[in-house]
Amino acid sequence: MSQHAQLIGLDWGTSSLRAYLYDVDGKVIATRQHAWGIRQLPEGGFATALRAITAGWPPCVIVAAGMIGSRQGWREVPYLDLPADAAAIAQGMLRVEACTSHALWIAPGLRRKEPADVMRGEETQIVGALTQQRADRTACFVLPGTHSKWATVNDGRIVAFDTVMTGELYALLMKHSILGAGIDLASAPSFSEEAFARGVHAVKDSGASGVFGCLFSVRALMLAGQLAADDLPDFVSGLLIGEEFRIAALREVQATPLCLIGEPALCRRYIAAAAIFGHAPPAVIDDAAAQGLWQLAAAGGLLQHATFHSYAGADT
Amino acid sequence: MSQHAQLIGLDWGTSSLRAYLYDVDGKVIATRQHAWGIRQLPEGGFATALRAITAGWPPCVIVAAGMIGSRQGWREVPYLDLPADAAAIAQGMLRVEACTSHALWIAPGLRRKEPADVMRGEETQIVGALTQQRADRTACFVLPGTHSKWATVNDGRIVAFDTVMTGELYALLMKHSILGAGIDLASAPSFSEEAFARGVHAVKDSGASGVFGCLFSVRALMLAGQLAADDLPDFVSGLLIGEEFRIAALREVQATPLCLIGEPALCRRYIAAAAIFGHAPPAVIDDAAAQGLWQLAAAGGLLQHATFHSYAGADT
Repeated sequence: MSQHAQLIGLDWGTSSLRAYLYDVDGKVIATRQHAWGIRQLPEGGFATALRAITAGWPPCVIVAAGMIGSRQGWREVPYLDLPADAAAIAQGMLRVEACTSHALWIAPGLRRKEPADVMRGEETQIVGALTQQRADRTACFVLPGTHSKWATVNDGRIVAFDTVMTGELYALLMKHSILGAGIDLASAPSFSEEAFARGVHAVKDSGASGVFGCLFSVRALMLAGQLAADDLPDFVSGLLIGEEFRIAALREVQATPLCLIGEPALCRRYIAAAAIFGHAPPAVIDDAAAQGLWQLAAAGGLLQHATFHSYAGADT
Repeated sequence: MSQHAQLIGLDWGTSSLRAYLYDVDGKVIATRQHAWGIRQLPEGGFATALRAITAGWPPCVIVAAGMIGSRQGWREVPYLDLPADAAAIAQGMLRVEACTSHALWIAPGLRRKEPADVMRGEETQIVGALTQQRADRTACFVLPGTHSKWATVNDGRIVAFDTVMTGELYALLMKHSILGAGIDLASAPSFSEEAFARGVHAVKDSGASGVFGCLFSVRALMLAGQLAADDLPDFVSGLLIGEEFRIAALREVQATPLCLIGEPALCRRYIAAAAIFGHAPPAVIDDAAAQGLWQLAAAGGLLQHATFHSYAGADT
């Protein structure tokens, strides 16, 4: 393995750390993950986590992306302003002088100035997704999650994006609000697309009013016996994800192909919501971070003798 | 005192119990309150709480409103459908056969069927507010709180209402979300009308998009150094209360006078938001529950020999 290894990539977020080892062709030949996100580091901190997650791997250049470049990360890497493509992001990488034999580079996040918005890590996933044939180079990339990102990409450049706190609000509402009182998510039945679609339709039908005006209806419907407890979580999920699409529709996203980046179970919800809002079926890309990290290394000139065969849009 | 006492009123909610003793003219001659909301009753339950809060008061008819009439209350009193006025609400009262020498009547809540919405207790406050000269009998009554209510009243009849979970969402966001991380509300400085107004303007300027698309900007503005930690709570408050007004504007509430029912500190925020949304200065009424309970007793024929001097709209 060692003679073929070319790069180590780290997708290092708030709550998890994923490491990828690549061969000279950019193919991932080993993957490791651990719960060492930047908020739950082992004793010894970043350096210890890095040593442990790469233990036994050959010394390679390392490229990292995500919250590891934030103020609370290993080294703060300033945000880049929009628009930005892979070459610009690669150029914004900063090197960490770490207690390691590896050269470690951290990618910058992106910033929209007015109104203020930020991303860290998703830019690298978008760069990775853009290498895939099924992703248009001009598309709206949707990255569902705790803080969902909707990014407009024009010929491979990220030109705009918005963040909505969908995943975090869902967790808050189910865990701490009156809506989730008495609902045990752990024992919830499997995904009810019908209950989910009902939530999406409710928020779509609300027009300019939106999800804030719909939330209490969850309680009222329960009291009226018109919403079963088993259906409540997916109904709330439909309201919140539906709100993402309702807001996106105001920006005329409909004209652009959608590309989802995320885990299949979550993307399934977005595919259902997209259909209700009249979008063509979105492309779905899982785990684009590994490819994005490779592309940043390539665009940053950190790969010696590597072939960039999978990077259709390299600007080098 | 006892020879003049005519009625006991109970404003019995989820987290508190307020008791009022009235003379024959409907004037409150004694008030008591305790944390015995229906979710935190003393040992012995409802009957014990009632005995304790009325200890030493003369035996009178009792009228109660609020969550005491819910499924989790002493006796479930079915919701009335809209429209409803004081006479209809009084007619919907049910008597509790309680272990007490008092005759206890509980007021019904109101229900909007489509889309589902409910209130319990606020209807009684609106009935009380309507007795005051400074409240129009055709107005939009706003009751800020955990679950804010916006009720449209036409010539003394409640014809429509909406609930928004403003107070609950504010508490969730400040206590449990990334927005409130590191913010200590207890040590927050006094109300910053400037920070609040900035939040109201942000959501107003969002147009049809609304607060859901604005929330993450709180985080982004903090990261960019464009929002001080001291200003964050009032900025978030402005976003959420602003959203209430943004939604209300879609229903053309602007044409109707606004009347606020609530505690002055909270109403101050709504007055500021109302100005930003172009409303005439709203009337403000504090503690309308006591008057509402009296009016229901009067409209329900539970007062013998009482004068109804303060009830301009009695339909009896």
